Amino acid sequence: MRKILIIGAGRSASSLIQYLLNQSEAENLHITIGDLSLELAQKKTAHHKNARAIAFDIFNAIQRQIEIERADLVISMLPAHMHIEVAKDCIAYKKHMVTASYISEAMQELDAEAKANNLVFMNEIGLDPGIDHMSAMKIIDEIREQGGKMIMFESFCGGLIAPESDNNAWNYKFTWAPRNVVLAGQGGAAKFIQEGTYKYIPYQQLFKRTDILKVEGYGNFETYANRDSLKYRSVYGLNDIQTLLRGTIRRSGYSKAWDAFVQLGMTDDSYVIDNSEQLTYQDYVRLFLPIDTPENTEKQFCQTIGLTQNDTMWIKFQELDLFSNSKTVGLKNATPAQILEKILTESWTLAPDDKDMIVMYHKFGYEIDGVKKQIDSQMVCIGHDQTYTAMAKTVGLPVAIAALRILNGQITNPGVQLPINKEVYIPILKELENFGIHFKETEVPFKGYS
Amino acid sequence: MRKILIIGAGRSASSLIQYLLNQSEAENLHITIGDLSLELAQKKTAHHKNARAIAFDIFNAIQRQIEIERADLVISMLPAHMHIEVAKDCIAYKKHMVTASYISEAMQELDAEAKANNLVFMNEIGLDPGIDHMSAMKIIDEIREQGGKMIMFESFCGGLIAPESDNNAWNYKFTWAPRNVVLAGQGGAAKFIQEGTYKYIPYQQLFKRTDILKVEGYGNFETYANRDSLKYRSVYGLNDIQTLLRGTIRRSGYSKAWDAFVQLGMTDDSYVIDNSEQLTYQDYVRLFLPIDTPENTEKQFCQTIGLTQNDTMWIKFQELDLFSNSKTVGLKNATPAQILEKILTESWTLAPDDKDMIVMYHKFGYEIDGVKKQIDSQMVCIGHDQTYTAMAKTVGLPVAIAALRILNGQITNPGVQLPINKEVYIPILKELENFGIHFKETEVPFKGYS
Repeated sequence: MRKILIIGAGRSASSLIQYLLNQSEAENLHITIGDLSLELAQKKTAHHKNARAIAFDIFNAIQRQIEIERADLVISMLPAHMHIEVAKDCIAYKKHMVTASYISEAMQELDAEAKANNLVFMNEIGLDPGIDHMSAMKIIDEIREQGGKMIMFESFCGGLIAPESDNNAWNYKFTWAPRNVVLAGQGGAAKFIQEGTYKYIPYQQLFKRTDILKVEGYGNFETYANRDSLKYRSVYGLNDIQTLLRGTIRRSGYSKAWDAFVQLGMTDDSYVIDNSEQLTYQDYVRLFLPIDTPENTEKQFCQTIGLTQNDTMWIKFQELDLFSNSKTVGLKNATPAQILEKILTESWTLAPDDKDMIVMYHKFGYEIDGVKKQIDSQMVCIGHDQTYTAMAKTVGLPVAIAALRILNGQITNPGVQLPINKEVYIPILKELENFGIHFKETEVPFKGYS
Repeated sequence: MRKILIIGAGRSASSLIQYLLNQSEAENLHITIGDLSLELAQKKTAHHKNARAIAFDIFNAIQRQIEIERADLVISMLPAHMHIEVAKDCIAYKKHMVTASYISEAMQELDAEAKANNLVFMNEIGLDPGIDHMSAMKIIDEIREQGGKMIMFESFCGGLIAPESDNNAWNYKFTWAPRNVVLAGQGGAAKFIQEGTYKYIPYQQLFKRTDILKVEGYGNFETYANRDSLKYRSVYGLNDIQTLLRGTIRRSGYSKAWDAFVQLGMTDDSYVIDNSEQLTYQDYVRLFLPIDTPENTEKQFCQTIGLTQNDTMWIKFQELDLFSNSKTVGLKNATPAQILEKILTESWTLAPDDKDMIVMYHKFGYEIDGVKKQIDSQMVCIGHDQTYTAMAKTVGLPVAIAALRILNGQITNPGVQLPINKEVYIPILKELENFGIHFKETEVPFKGYS
């Protein structure tokens, strides 16, 4: 049997494990699933006869080396900074490796050794990065083959709530790490290129400078710019492109309301608030308002962010119970961001039957025979339940498919790789369609940047 | 003769040196002025017979120790982080020391040794910190002696342009380090306490949340909050005070216009701009605007910051030549903040005859016999010329006066000190009046926080 070691059995590993277990008979696979929590690993193996669950500590070098030596291929679903020790052992024991994370410098440094040992180290093969690369390169390569020249590439992705579970005023719930949602956009200006000019958007403008995105069959969304779009120029070979933008998708209206938290300083994670534990939610809001009369916190809030109470946006804040003078924060030495996360979690946590939704949308502008054209490509994936979420499917399935294809000798290019070559992306995109992950491509009139 | 060593002959040392040289005959003083630039040191000694100029490198331990050993008292006008080596040598050779800087942790750690050797290490005795401490403690102590209880302390200071030299639309010129002006307010939320509630203002709100300040005889100003007002509670013994705020003074209208730079991201110092050297000023502005049609940068700018071109604020931006398509940035690998500083420097540099102005304003709220009262205290100091600036006078004279009083045994409390004791501040404030630095105190109706 071919042995696969999967390290990390968390949320994004469910569909990955399911796929490989389902294939294990036909493909003669044995899967070892290691996680710090043996219970979690056992839950994911579900007593499958071709699977083994183990308690696994990545920092236990002896155990790590024993398990990697036993495997034919290793999948690391750990946080990105933890891959490197696994990768070094994979070199030492000559095992292929797959991750869904961005290639770190340390990982890139192993390229020559991986090549020398004829090992495939496939990275960035989850959703974003992963499906974005593959679905973009498919169209970019097609355009080039026709003799077209890329002049614009805009690419958007969002982890959202499915329409059937979308029942709050923000049209948003936490389908992924809440902390990352609260801190989104912090840590540096967003950078992109628009019709040949660099553009920089600071955090305080980010949620104001949204664009409208219409997704066929799913209605209106909005997008805001991601941190550094410029690095995709070299990855995709788009060095002389005029417009290049990557962004995050939210339902329309989310960003304007979110911007109120940004402007007031409620997303700040850089200092702790005195006596945070005892504060009521209303006390917390008052920390950021100019006037200090407890009687009219709601009016002061509206006035400070330039909102009238007949604005539909007002419902969003009311719904969060942000002005409660009975609910208390209950977190010691908390930052503004941590408190906001707590308040939001009470409103934005998925109900047991809620489903998540992934939306990805690309716009490709190109010129061919002197004519400017545009292709839009959209993918919407809805989760099955809270184990086989859209996130778990879109992150895990490409990893699983790639792993099996490496074992089967269908992906052979050695070294530290990402899935931008046709030999890799075409069969994977095709197989993903069987799981409801398919891109709908449409020719549209060229509209220029959004 | 009593020997004083002054380390650092920069802008803020002019009045300090002048005072001590003027007193040198009567007080039997010999002054050594050391600076990295011998020329600068010589210029400041002006061939005075009781002075000696030397090239002095703080990192040359041998020279430093020789010169400190020769002195009776050492004044360090170096940047704050450079004092500590001097201070350690002052302990070793048993010399008094004076600085105008905040007491660092490293300095505070020398307290016991300074006391054991009966040495006065006087710090925070310039303008801010310095004159602020002294003028505030004078009133706070008087209020307490009358049996009053402090309920509010607000204190504002600004380095500005004198009315007779105030001839631009911003009513502002660089009278001090331009870089600090461009980066003002960055690096963390402003923190203060207002009627018993903590208040936090993030950078993106700071220049919106100004208060009006009327200074008798000088018209209207505005203030914005300084970084951390809360630390003054323990220094001034105001631990149960209801309102405590420190702020920076600008002329009315400055902050609203400055906020446009903040909102657009033009004060960001965290990344460098590609090809910054070749950009025209207009190109630079366009980096931060959503739309990209070079023809109407000015209109786009107005629209983005929510300004109509009939707004008087518009004149401020026009005056800077911010939209020039002929002037180029000319700085390699520059950050947005560095480019903005360059553009501003062209407009905001002092003309040869321009004079600067320091404004300090305190508001003391207190309760006595059940009645709430308020005292306002204001000080305005105008520079003599560009050597004996208001900044040089207000920073340097208290240092000089304190140094002489230490030598004369009139300030004797040993250890690491700041000038909050009556024995220190009363005679110094009195002598400062001879140099035009005097506080006008007025009883006003209690108005609460501004």
